[in-house]
Amino acid sequence: MILSAQSTTVKEPKITLVGAGPGDPELISLKGINAIKSADVILYDANIDKSLLDYAPEHATKIFVGSPVDDDTYSQETVNKLIIDYALNFGHVVRLKTGDLFVFGRGYEELDNAASYSIQTEIIPGISSAVSVPGLQGVPVTHRGMSDSLWIISATDSKGNLSPDLYTAAKTDATVVIMLGIEKVAEIVGIYQKEGRSRMPVAVIQHGSTKDEKVVVGNIKTIAEAVEEKNIGSPALIVIGAVVGLHPLFQPIREFYEAQEIAL
Amino acid sequence: MILSAQSTTVKEPKITLVGAGPGDPELISLKGINAIKSADVILYDANIDKSLLDYAPEHATKIFVGSPVDDDTYSQETVNKLIIDYALNFGHVVRLKTGDLFVFGRGYEELDNAASYSIQTEIIPGISSAVSVPGLQGVPVTHRGMSDSLWIISATDSKGNLSPDLYTAAKTDATVVIMLGIEKVAEIVGIYQKEGRSRMPVAVIQHGSTKDEKVVVGNIKTIAEAVEEKNIGSPALIVIGAVVGLHPLFQPIREFYEAQEIAL
Repeated sequence: MILSAQSTTVKEPKITLVGAGPGDPELISLKGINAIKSADVILYDANIDKSLLDYAPEHATKIFVGSPVDDDTYSQETVNKLIIDYALNFGHVVRLKTGDLFVFGRGYEELDNAASYSIQTEIIPGISSAVSVPGLQGVPVTHRGMSDSLWIISATDSKGNLSPDLYTAAKTDATVVIMLGIEKVAEIVGIYQKEGRSRMPVAVIQHGSTKDEKVVVGNIKTIAEAVEEKNIGSPALIVIGAVVGLHPLFQPIREFYEAQEIAL
Repeated sequence: MILSAQSTTVKEPKITLVGAGPGDPELISLKGINAIKSADVILYDANIDKSLLDYAPEHATKIFVGSPVDDDTYSQETVNKLIIDYALNFGHVVRLKTGDLFVFGRGYEELDNAASYSIQTEIIPGISSAVSVPGLQGVPVTHRGMSDSLWIISATDSKGNLSPDLYTAAKTDATVVIMLGIEKVAEIVGIYQKEGRSRMPVAVIQHGSTKDEKVVVGNIKTIAEAVEEKNIGSPALIVIGAVVGLHPLFQPIREFYEAQEIAL
């Protein structure tokens, strides 16, 4: 009886975008967990740790929506539509997304769509993979006297072309983190090689912060081969810059060059 | 008796660096809270919300260490020394830092110092202010078709000079977030003006995600005056790029230029 009374109550539609962080389910924020606890519906990404869904109330509907970034099964348009439909029919929709929300997360498209239906929205940011995953691997994205900036770049633009920012980045001393670019790694290192930076340290990290994490460390000249050998695929970050030289796996590479008296 | 037995046990020294997020105490991660719960000592920054200290066990010592980034009272060397002393004498030190850990947070210097004493360390990343604060204000740091990269830059390098990256950034279409730069805002907009980008949208956000949050929105030409008028000081982010044009406060500016048929 009580259940039936609940289900016939028309709930106010609300959409909360929650960034779940890089993968480790304990890296979600307290606020994110509280949002899940009050959800009527959860729409979650391919890389979300399923244990996060256990915080949801028993009545909540949990819906897998793939990865809008690189999964054609669930287009961004489909996901946008699902968010609205569920909010209008069931009340509080929590849209649980990997990473933060706005670093190539397409969060603004979901917000903008909700606004066009005048549905109340809330934003709960998450820990960005681009910032946190290198640090967890022992690579600080900035370090005094070594790197005074962090440039996070999507490998391709909305038309699928290599981002023009990559050509500029290869000329700077910024720490560069390239997302959605593992299939383009050969082309990306080519840009750095043209700038004469073959020995610049590079790390590639797949499934950062999770038990499936894989990492390879090398330099511009060697990394593409290492990625192929270790069979590293999406989702992965490419981290380029002097700070990668602080990673323990870079030490033998440094010693190799030093033994030959070649400057890094 | 039990208390006395506890206090004489020699605890294994351990140092956990915890990123507390941009300011809102609910934006810390679950893992960060669990670390605080197991702390013997907490060393916390100037911008940490004090309510986070309530998660600590009753016996834990809580020590304020200012802001190593822009506070001369507690130099980075002093903080490094305190971390080691407390770990060796009391056991588990949680170093609670604003934001993430490595985006100009000097976290690596603290880690590196701990490593030189062979003390076990753990890293628990936090939500970076640079990524999250613009989003919470309605400015997505990237947006498909508008910005394919986010460049986070420290206004000055370790020698105190304006970062050379700012001159390059002003030529790109990256969303640029400048940290520790509010005192340099006039010089920074000067760089963009030389590139002919006087109408580029800019937001300045102080104390993002907290109840003390202040925001001004304008363009390169107007922002320095607005910052002075609204009396905005440190800590504040400067956000420059087309995505800032999505902020509701930018709409009257857009309409002003459109009425005069001037392209933005």
